[in-house]
Amino acid sequence: MEANDDSDIIEHHVEEEMEKRATRSHAASSSSFLESVTPSDREGHSGTQSSHRLLAYSDALISIIATVMILPVAHTKVEDNEELRESVQILLTTKIAVYLMTFLIVTVAWAAHIRLFQVIVRIDDCLALLNLACMMLITFLPYTFSLMATFPENILGILLFCGCVMVMGVIQSVIVLYAFSRPFLLNEQIQISEHQTFYKHHILKVIMRVPLMCFIATIFSFIFFQLSYVVLAIVIFLPYISQSLKWCRSKAIGQVEETPDSMLFYTYLPNEPLSKDRVEAFSDGVYAIVATLLILDICEDNVPDPSIVQKQYGGSLIAALQDYGPEYLAYFGSFVTVGLLWFVHHSLFLHVTKATRFMGLLNTFSLAFVGGLPLAYQLTHEFPHNTRNELEAIQISCVIIFFAGIFQLAIWVAALYNEQETLHPYVRYGGREHVFMLAKLALYPCVALGTFFLTCILSKFSAPIFHLMQITVPFAFLVLRLLVRVGLALLRLLFCPDRPDPRSIVDEEDEETRVPFNALVT
Amino acid sequence: MEANDDSDIIEHHVEEEMEKRATRSHAASSSSFLESVTPSDREGHSGTQSSHRLLAYSDALISIIATVMILPVAHTKVEDNEELRESVQILLTTKIAVYLMTFLIVTVAWAAHIRLFQVIVRIDDCLALLNLACMMLITFLPYTFSLMATFPENILGILLFCGCVMVMGVIQSVIVLYAFSRPFLLNEQIQISEHQTFYKHHILKVIMRVPLMCFIATIFSFIFFQLSYVVLAIVIFLPYISQSLKWCRSKAIGQVEETPDSMLFYTYLPNEPLSKDRVEAFSDGVYAIVATLLILDICEDNVPDPSIVQKQYGGSLIAALQDYGPEYLAYFGSFVTVGLLWFVHHSLFLHVTKATRFMGLLNTFSLAFVGGLPLAYQLTHEFPHNTRNELEAIQISCVIIFFAGIFQLAIWVAALYNEQETLHPYVRYGGREHVFMLAKLALYPCVALGTFFLTCILSKFSAPIFHLMQITVPFAFLVLRLLVRVGLALLRLLFCPDRPDPRSIVDEEDEETRVPFNALVT
Repeated sequence: MEANDDSDIIEHHVEEEMEKRATRSHAASSSSFLESVTPSDREGHSGTQSSHRLLAYSDALISIIATVMILPVAHTKVEDNEELRESVQILLTTKIAVYLMTFLIVTVAWAAHIRLFQVIVRIDDCLALLNLACMMLITFLPYTFSLMATFPENILGILLFCGCVMVMGVIQSVIVLYAFSRPFLLNEQIQISEHQTFYKHHILKVIMRVPLMCFIATIFSFIFFQLSYVVLAIVIFLPYISQSLKWCRSKAIGQVEETPDSMLFYTYLPNEPLSKDRVEAFSDGVYAIVATLLILDICEDNVPDPSIVQKQYGGSLIAALQDYGPEYLAYFGSFVTVGLLWFVHHSLFLHVTKATRFMGLLNTFSLAFVGGLPLAYQLTHEFPHNTRNELEAIQISCVIIFFAGIFQLAIWVAALYNEQETLHPYVRYGGREHVFMLAKLALYPCVALGTFFLTCILSKFSAPIFHLMQITVPFAFLVLRLLVRVGLALLRLLFCPDRPDPRSIVDEEDEETRVPFNALVT
Repeated sequence: MEANDDSDIIEHHVEEEMEKRATRSHAASSSSFLESVTPSDREGHSGTQSSHRLLAYSDALISIIATVMILPVAHTKVEDNEELRESVQILLTTKIAVYLMTFLIVTVAWAAHIRLFQVIVRIDDCLALLNLACMMLITFLPYTFSLMATFPENILGILLFCGCVMVMGVIQSVIVLYAFSRPFLLNEQIQISEHQTFYKHHILKVIMRVPLMCFIATIFSFIFFQLSYVVLAIVIFLPYISQSLKWCRSKAIGQVEETPDSMLFYTYLPNEPLSKDRVEAFSDGVYAIVATLLILDICEDNVPDPSIVQKQYGGSLIAALQDYGPEYLAYFGSFVTVGLLWFVHHSLFLHVTKATRFMGLLNTFSLAFVGGLPLAYQLTHEFPHNTRNELEAIQISCVIIFFAGIFQLAIWVAALYNEQETLHPYVRYGGREHVFMLAKLALYPCVALGTFFLTCILSKFSAPIFHLMQITVPFAFLVLRLLVRVGLALLRLLFCPDRPDPRSIVDEEDEETRVPFNALVT
């Protein structure tokens, strides 16, 4: 049970995953089944199943739940005659808090779900049903937050929340006990281990930690309810804080000391790998739902009433729709922004070979801001032109986009810290694609920051211009590739004009002999 | 270019997919990168990328867009004093039509997207951006339908729709031309084929068919706009009708004649395989968004106003929340129904090795009804107890659930027709899991049908009882496994009491020597 045992466990798990997929694809491709009663096929079709699709569905559910709570925020009508600042402050105290708390607690639950299903790698019908019950309780959590935010003095919200978490704890314990009673469902490393009972107890202990704290919060809520909020805050932020602290410490004092008995895959150690597939699936879900919430608003609010069109516009639909012009522009602008943030995320994770927990944390923060984009959309088209409110709405949008982008950049920086483990050699510091990736990641924060300062200086900066800017950004991406190449060529010309870069020769030779795989040659 | 060339193409594609995945997993698992500059790794990181995640994101976007249009339907307030039948008729004419049209046209676009990316198997940044532009136009389609439904006499909706489709056609053509100008992005079968130009022209012809029809519809809209609706209806239903007709014909006259020059992967032939992964991803998206829309309604509508609680309930939050009791019950009931329908779908596709286009079509119909569940949820908790309206709301729910389930059953039946190709040997007719799978699939249609007739006979059948029934169904699933086993044992006892089934002996031996993989032994 040395520490590097654990990396073996994980590696083994990944290899097994690969094998499983290969088997699935194989089953899909082979049209004759003469040879199909192999053990692996058998296993796939007799009650025991690969957990792949269950996890994908759970990811989709959790990501949508995390994001969809922005809708009540975005739908809160901000009065025109009030100052925006005031209304935003009212929003901040309740609905945005609900949104952020939901997002954070749901991602904590999601991380726990990942850990659990790194131990249990196969499922059967019973586990699938138990998992669905767990999902039902997770989807109910946002409602308990709504109650807490609306009635902070009432303990009912706390009780409901703690009740849900405790029931989830019980269900997860049942899942673990069930899986350990049928060891063929487990990770093979645990399956063949002689310490199975020890593993079981350790995992149960980790799972019951959060429900136990919720139980304490329940007791506090009857005595002194403010304390139970403190306990809940600790529950939500504990993994994040401990991750950050451990990461800082590991950076400060070098390598973490080797704890021989630790089971890395069931702790919060920041360098431990998350399942990259699941991080991608979760992120895809968030980006997809954000992009779709926008059109939902368009369809619900921007179809004029036939009677109004008849009376006010003399039956001219085009005239009636012209009033909605800003909405359409805002929609296209926001969709482009969401799409390109996804595109940057996609490019980033193409180069990442392994996502650490700390990168997962940064990803969560980035996604929380991406989830705020429908609010930005709602704000920017709501106010009349050239008012103070409109300027401030644009500024809020810039702040949201800036943070969404800067946390993506932070993922990249965090990956560079462990580049041996997390990045592909082609994009490591100084690597072929490194500069271009950096430029891609820096584009949105820079544009958002620039626009923010522009709005501070100029008093006249209208939302349509802002949205037009959003729409032009994709072309910037295409231009960027050209610019980076020209810039690199210039740099090479300036610093070593005589000596041609040896790598570039190799690459050029490459290009002549092979298909041109590379658009960017450093 | 014989007909079985095509199955080669597809098989090759699947194999390649498998290889790609294996490569990805491998890249994720290997922590030292000494050996990593292999050609396949290189390919993954120099501008050219696997299309896997782009497709997953597109699936998520398209499935959410298809489903989310049920929200305007569900949010339409049905007046209590009116008869439900009348309000439903008003709904039917506009919003449900918008929902169904959106669902159908979006799945047509999705099928085209699958076909396109069966030809183009690798992407680069440029293709990713073009694909995002396509997605943006797809998300805008529901709005054009809203306009058409609200202003059927005005041609603006038609023009907007046709405009979107034509632009999408242009973008897709650009994608095809771009991909054929960089052949390393293509399916390898096409890459090495000497008929590349022929393939290109054929694919372009297929792609431009729909935009061309839209162009005709545009011209008609200026002359005689009713005709353009007919053309649009043909556009939407043509693939479905032609699929059904071809399927009927192939069943009636046996095997379809071999057309030597056809490219099966770019036609509508019903037996041609869809990408099973993408069908699953699309279905997951629909189920996930439906489950989540329910809690969104709960959070937006069922948090009482603090001032009302103070005035009407003397500050007692619990008393205030008791009014929402039916909503909570309705929520849990609906979530359980969605979850279990997903569960059945999941079990079904575990046994399917290859999804044909006809199965995909049935799957679309099933999903369209699943998407209607939020409407059922809204209706069942909206009316006072023991009214005619409540009964009718329950009946509508039963109809929706019945059709969602019966189309799942139809997928199974369609799979049994081609069981050699589409099903795993273990579940083929008479196979080990066959009876249990059939029982699982039949459960929801039977329960829904039974409840429907109960509501016809009994005049007193309340929504809470209905939702309690929904919640008890998962236990039925667990009981089912037992019942099927007992039933099979009884049948064996009745018909061949003396001769013990040879298979069962083998299985029992199996069970003693090996880990008990099988919960059900026939």
